[in-house]
Amino acid sequence: MDLLLLNGPNLNRLGKREPDVYGHETLEDIEDRIRKLCMNHNVGLSSFQSNHEGALIDRIHQAADEGVYGIVFNPGAYTHTSIAIRDAIASVHIPVVEVHISNIHNRESFRQNSMLAPVCAGQISGLGTDGYELGALALIRKMERE
Amino acid sequence: MDLLLLNGPNLNRLGKREPDVYGHETLEDIEDRIRKLCMNHNVGLSSFQSNHEGALIDRIHQAADEGVYGIVFNPGAYTHTSIAIRDAIASVHIPVVEVHISNIHNRESFRQNSMLAPVCAGQISGLGTDGYELGALALIRKMERE
Amino acid sequence: MDLLLLNGPNLNRLGKREPDVYGHETLEDIEDRIRKLCMNHNVGLSSFQSNHEGALIDRIHQAADEGVYGIVFNPGAYTHTSIAIRDAIASVHIPVVEVHISNIHNRESFRQNSMLAPVCAGQISGLGTDGYELGALALIRKMERE
Amino acid sequence: MDLLLLNGPNLNRLGKREPDVYGHETLEDIEDRIRKLCMNHNVGLSSFQSNHEGALIDRIHQAADEGVYGIVFNPGAYTHTSIAIRDAIASVHIPVVEVHISNIHNRESFRQNSMLAPVCAGQISGLGTDGYELGALALIRKMERE
Amino acid sequence: MDLLLLNGPNLNRLGKREPDVYGHETLEDIEDRIRKLCMNHNVGLSSFQSNHEGALIDRIHQAADEGVYGIVFNPGAYTHTSIAIRDAIASVHIPVVEVHISNIHNRESFRQNSMLAPVCAGQISGLGTDGYELGALALIRKMERE
Amino acid sequence: MDLLLLNGPNLNRLGKREPDVYGHETLEDIEDRIRKLCMNHNVGLSSFQSNHEGALIDRIHQAADEGVYGIVFNPGAYTHTSIAIRDAIASVHIPVVEVHISNIHNRESFRQNSMLAPVCAGQISGLGTDGYELGALALIRKMERE
Amino acid sequence: MDLLLLNGPNLNRLGKREPDVYGHETLEDIEDRIRKLCMNHNVGLSSFQSNHEGALIDRIHQAADEGVYGIVFNPGAYTHTSIAIRDAIASVHIPVVEVHISNIHNRESFRQNSMLAPVCAGQISGLGTDGYELGALALIRKMERE
Amino acid sequence: MDLLLLNGPNLNRLGKREPDVYGHETLEDIEDRIRKLCMNHNVGLSSFQSNHEGALIDRIHQAADEGVYGIVFNPGAYTHTSIAIRDAIASVHIPVVEVHISNIHNRESFRQNSMLAPVCAGQISGLGTDGYELGALALIRKMERE
Amino acid sequence: MDLLLLNGPNLNRLGKREPDVYGHETLEDIEDRIRKLCMNHNVGLSSFQSNHEGALIDRIHQAADEGVYGIVFNPGAYTHTSIAIRDAIASVHIPVVEVHISNIHNRESFRQNSMLAPVCAGQISGLGTDGYELGALALIRKMERE
Amino acid sequence: MDLLLLNGPNLNRLGKREPDVYGHETLEDIEDRIRKLCMNHNVGLSSFQSNHEGALIDRIHQAADEGVYGIVFNPGAYTHTSIAIRDAIASVHIPVVEVHISNIHNRESFRQNSMLAPVCAGQISGLGTDGYELGALALIRKMERE
Amino acid sequence: MDLLLLNGPNLNRLGKREPDVYGHETLEDIEDRIRKLCMNHNVGLSSFQSNHEGALIDRIHQAADEGVYGIVFNPGAYTHTSIAIRDAIASVHIPVVEVHISNIHNRESFRQNSMLAPVCAGQISGLGTDGYELGALALIRKMERE
Amino acid sequence: MDLLLLNGPNLNRLGKREPDVYGHETLEDIEDRIRKLCMNHNVGLSSFQSNHEGALIDRIHQAADEGVYGIVFNPGAYTHTSIAIRDAIASVHIPVVEVHISNIHNRESFRQNSMLAPVCAGQISGLGTDGYELGALALIRKMERE
Repeated sequence: MDLLLLNGPNLNRLGKREPDVYGHETLEDIEDRIRKLCMNHNVGLSSFQSNHEGALIDRIHQAADEGVYGIVFNPGAYTHTSIAIRDAIASVHIPVVEVHISNIHNRESFRQNSMLAPVCAGQISGLGTDGYELGALALIRKMERE
Repeated sequence: MDLLLLNGPNLNRLGKREPDVYGHETLEDIEDRIRKLCMNHNVGLSSFQSNHEGALIDRIHQAADEGVYGIVFNPGAYTHTSIAIRDAIASVHIPVVEVHISNIHNRESFRQNSMLAPVCAGQISGLGTDGYELGALALIRKMERE
Repeated sequence: MDLLLLNGPNLNRLGKREPDVYGHETLEDIEDRIRKLCMNHNVGLSSFQSNHEGALIDRIHQAADEGVYGIVFNPGAYTHTSIAIRDAIASVHIPVVEVHISNIHNRESFRQNSMLAPVCAGQISGLGTDGYELGALALIRKMERE
Repeated sequence: MDLLLLNGPNLNRLGKREPDVYGHETLEDIEDRIRKLCMNHNVGLSSFQSNHEGALIDRIHQAADEGVYGIVFNPGAYTHTSIAIRDAIASVHIPVVEVHISNIHNRESFRQNSMLAPVCAGQISGLGTDGYELGALALIRKMERE
Repeated sequence: MDLLLLNGPNLNRLGKREPDVYGHETLEDIEDRIRKLCMNHNVGLSSFQSNHEGALIDRIHQAADEGVYGIVFNPGAYTHTSIAIRDAIASVHIPVVEVHISNIHNRESFRQNSMLAPVCAGQISGLGTDGYELGALALIRKMERE
Repeated sequence: MDLLLLNGPNLNRLGKREPDVYGHETLEDIEDRIRKLCMNHNVGLSSFQSNHEGALIDRIHQAADEGVYGIVFNPGAYTHTSIAIRDAIASVHIPVVEVHISNIHNRESFRQNSMLAPVCAGQISGLGTDGYELGALALIRKMERE
Repeated sequence: MDLLLLNGPNLNRLGKREPDVYGHETLEDIEDRIRKLCMNHNVGLSSFQSNHEGALIDRIHQAADEGVYGIVFNPGAYTHTSIAIRDAIASVHIPVVEVHISNIHNRESFRQNSMLAPVCAGQISGLGTDGYELGALALIRKMERE
Repeated sequence: MDLLLLNGPNLNRLGKREPDVYGHETLEDIEDRIRKLCMNHNVGLSSFQSNHEGALIDRIHQAADEGVYGIVFNPGAYTHTSIAIRDAIASVHIPVVEVHISNIHNRESFRQNSMLAPVCAGQISGLGTDGYELGALALIRKMERE
Repeated sequence: MDLLLLNGPNLNRLGKREPDVYGHETLEDIEDRIRKLCMNHNVGLSSFQSNHEGALIDRIHQAADEGVYGIVFNPGAYTHTSIAIRDAIASVHIPVVEVHISNIHNRESFRQNSMLAPVCAGQISGLGTDGYELGALALIRKMERE
Repeated sequence: MDLLLLNGPNLNRLGKREPDVYGHETLEDIEDRIRKLCMNHNVGLSSFQSNHEGALIDRIHQAADEGVYGIVFNPGAYTHTSIAIRDAIASVHIPVVEVHISNIHNRESFRQNSMLAPVCAGQISGLGTDGYELGALALIRKMERE
Repeated sequence: MDLLLLNGPNLNRLGKREPDVYGHETLEDIEDRIRKLCMNHNVGLSSFQSNHEGALIDRIHQAADEGVYGIVFNPGAYTHTSIAIRDAIASVHIPVVEVHISNIHNRESFRQNSMLAPVCAGQISGLGTDGYELGALALIRKMERE
Repeated sequence: MDLLLLNGPNLNRLGKREPDVYGHETLEDIEDRIRKLCMNHNVGLSSFQSNHEGALIDRIHQAADEGVYGIVFNPGAYTHTSIAIRDAIASVHIPVVEVHISNIHNRESFRQNSMLAPVCAGQISGLGTDGYELGALALIRKMERE
């Protein structure tokens, strides 16, 4: 059984600029951390990032065809606007944990509404890049329990 | 004179999963039904589906260049969010009939607003996949009357 | 099995004034078109128009008592205000196709909300008086399929 | 050339109860005042009151068929809710002066929106029953000027 | 001294359809229960139902002319839209108890606003058809206390 | 089987001040009336008042542990703000009749929304302290019918 | 006894530009018409126009000091924004008739709210420059009746 | 260094009723799980539940006085209404992880706003009682990293 | 005659933490200042602080029973949410001056609405802890004037 | 060091009309009271009133040029509408205490928003003309403390 | 052909205070830059600044009488509130370029709505005092092109 | 140092259709004008247009990697909906001037909100295709000044 680590727009630039401000951790570093966690539990991991809403939808469809067990998803700005991604998640019956690195609740008001959360299994925000690991852990526990 | 059958995000998965719930009819089946209807009236049909907003805009522009007579369009979730597709429709002067398989008026409130309807010729919702045929028929009648 | 063609306020004046603007087609002409369509499918047709909200409710109740199969209904302005007609439709379990001659989505904002659509089977708007025929056709197909 | 004096719901009870509060002037008294004013200008007057929205619509249609020149209309509570009467007025091309006896702007907030005003020629409110006379006078001046 | 039992749109169909769902109790059964209750307290009862907003207004006016003591009123869907009925109630100085069979507060949001409640003596909702009896009892107690 | 009479903030002061304005009836008087009504139907009654939201929640939990049959509840100002009490009611599966002495619908707009009504069996407002008795009666009838 | 004709911002340009569009009638012409009407009823008339909100307030204060009987006031754009003029009107106890040449109800939505109407005696809109005369007439009738 | 497990209104009843619906896990079971996790990392744990908003505020103040390192907090319904708890959290400078057992984003709209989240370190929702453990883990990691 | 100094949630921590940020002045210091001011005018002072909404209501009731002349009240966060405290104030007929240390108008939008201000005598905000003294002074002047 | 007493529209009429209603205190009387208070603390006082928004802005600019220490400002109706005065205050770096004689929180809803309060030092409302003195006192204390 | 440089409230203080923060550039400096630019294109320039809304309206009217070709207008705070200036612009048929020195879109929300923009030719914001020059340049190009 | 000319959805069709309505100027013509302007100032220019939101984000990222000095960006319809593009701009620290050919403030209300403006350096709208040149000029001046 595999998990998919899915990242939306602008997350490809994580840790690439201004390391003194945002830290040195890149998206690749995060993938490594989650991959190790998965290996420890004998779970495979795919990873995909795109700035294209349509590409994220295509990848969610593909995950359903591949039989992916769960998705750890940081949808970036599409969290707040994409009904199309919402429909993709709702149509595939794969549990999705929505992850946000920052606390979206003390930013601009338009970031406080998530179009995706109602169709996700759960949401983790504000806990930094640890949130990815906690999200993966939640899915692994669910998997182990079944 | 030709029609274009245009389908937006997630409609590629129609009938592919849970046939006991959503029926066995796939997007290909629908294309076949509309193609037959068109042939009976000596009208050609192109068909295009994409999960990418930009690709749908590109295809609408292409339709204008090809001289397509009318478009039967199920824009899926982009119905409610895409001003860019709205502008594409408004710029091409091709009559568009907006089709929704389900009754969007008894679903979530954010599905009840259509950004596209004001620039479409008309809208058909809630009549299942028959809506595509009724939409094509409306365009064919208009074509025959001119 | 019969259909009911139901028309709400001000539709009695259709085609009676300014034929150069609105066309010469009267409500009687539309009734004739729908009646012919029904006859071709061996379906009966009743027709009723009223400017009175209560009279439309009474007629819907009567349709239930008569065993009418489906209703093609242009509720006119009551579309946007009548919870009472909504309740009447919801109580009778007859499929209703809501028809609007014009595209209600590019008119005043108060015309873009339909109190009735959530309890109707479907809605057709903006396709002119063809909408009535498409609505009747949708009900006839449904009837033939059962 | 004739005017129509049209009154909506509850105005039949004007002056009939609590004369010490609302004054002794009944709807009949008002009709008499307007009739006299019209006679002085050689203008005929019809008068109609109903508590039924549909009956008011029917009467407006009839006015168009009769060639009435203008309507002095106190729509009562239908002012704020009736899109159907709005459509009736818009369809008949007769100038309508909307009259309210009380100042609707210092009453409940739901009385401050008029569905009818945008399709009427003008509106007079808060000037008591004199408003009917001023409204008739406005129409007579317009008539005399043409 | 008499009470008036007044019922608005669609309540004529109570208990007439799907008795396994809505119960077998018809509007006539309710009238019988209230009439018996009134007789036990030497109070007369009239009863009136209509789907026409105007007819309900006419009946409220008539009640004032007849000297009715109080009204038990289930206004159905007009509860939420009729300023005209509100004005009728406000003008007659008869205490009105507004009754709703179902709990309007856990239905659609548009049913949670009552245009009439501010001018009624009180409101009872969600207590089934017992609500009619409780409403009548409240008026009888008030009558007996005076 | 027992009922619980529950009263929220400020109701302890009922009838204690300005008897010429609010009447002489105290909360104790109301308890006596409801107790007598219950005794006549062989039903026990507990009574509790608190100005503390938490204490009302504790008491609702206790009622569930005691097997109370139903609750007549005037939540006072917590009606409009307390999701916590709503959750307490929803969790205990005891029918609650919400009672308001005054007509909350003609007071400030913030009093017209009840957070509790959607999870209560029903609501009675505007019928003075009789509302408590009618609420108790409704629960007793329900009890006797089962 | 005197009336005051008061005009707000931009009304000084009435009739000065584009006479083929707006007509040739200037503010001076209107003053002449109202002055003649007043003379026929032995009533004096002052007239004042300003583009300055403060100057209009000063003039209303002065009117109170002069014992002006009533004000015919076209507040122009200040209608929709000036609480300060509203307070000035409310403080002077002089009946004010608010006049708008055009029908403010079929223009931009921000023109449909009048800050002043609640403290004016009445409002006349959409009846062209006749509205000034009707407003003066209303005040004169009120004066003659007292 | 210690953590505090804090639970708000109605969470005392977790697992106590309808175990077939909500599971058999009680608040005590959850405390045990978190205590074991803490012990494995040599971290102490206090636990407190109350239905009283004020008691929760008092306990947060006490935590500051005791030098608690972090708080895992399920504020229940006070999440959505309590500015007072928000101020308490903001004043103590202790990182708080807000936990919700259910996915608050697919419940009633009033549950989708959190007054507390903007002043919390992060939020975890929809991951069942695992959320408590993930929240504690997040705080332990932060502690170990410092 | 006595005054009551009443303080709501979190004000017990004033000056206790981060004196370099918020200053060293504690609630006790403020009480001392107000007590001295009162003594200079021969007025007694009681003082009460609680984080419990219900306890504040209880204390307001007690103040009425004790014949307290006026209340200087900093309701903290309950300012914005507590209808129950509002009702308590409204019921006791004691003049209350609402005091806020900070300027609530340049903080979060939810702090800009006061549920209590409409039933208070007045409100002072943004003038630091001097606001308590100014509030007490306002009540003392009122007392001396009577 | 000097203070400026600034008053906005309509405050020139204070105490000039209906002394039995509003009291006999004129703006001059208030100036005298504040001047005496200032003299007792060796502080100078200028005073200015205008109904013109622009004149108030000019005067605030002039205060900055004169080195005024603080402003006691009752902006009248401009409180709720003037962003221009807000900008003037924000640009001059003089502490301003906003004063309202009446309690603006129990008047019309449009009076409950202050455009100015966010840039003022503080706000005092509802304490009658004493508010001016309290405002001046607050500025004098601040001055003495520095 | 001439241009008019028009500046609204508070812009007279530009560069006069805190040069280290806002720069040393005064309104006179800006006038000089625009005048030079105009001279280079043989265009005249008038300049006017006022804090009075009415004075700005008067100046716009005067510009129409003088035959000014275009207006570069920084309306300051009146941008967001003045319908009267909007009407003045709309009435004179002179192209107006609205200029804002700062980026109004990342300031308070009330600064993001411009009452004037819909009747202006265009809007430039956020480009500092260069915006004035760009605005003048746009008008000069337009002039040269005609 | 280089500039990037970036154009969003539907701008590829500029000048390609209906030259009598929209003019003959194509996107290529605009590129030529901006390129010449840049050459005159020894600045390079890249140009990119796409109908795909993701492609525009990719291009902004690439601009950061290439060290582009500034971006002249007409985001078309994505202006109003794309938080993802906003985040891309915010992350790259390149000054962006947002350009709109038409005056977005007198079109549909949904076009009057710009998601991007708060993170752009400035915005130019309504000045036709000159806006591109003015935007480039603003960036060049900024570059020359540094």
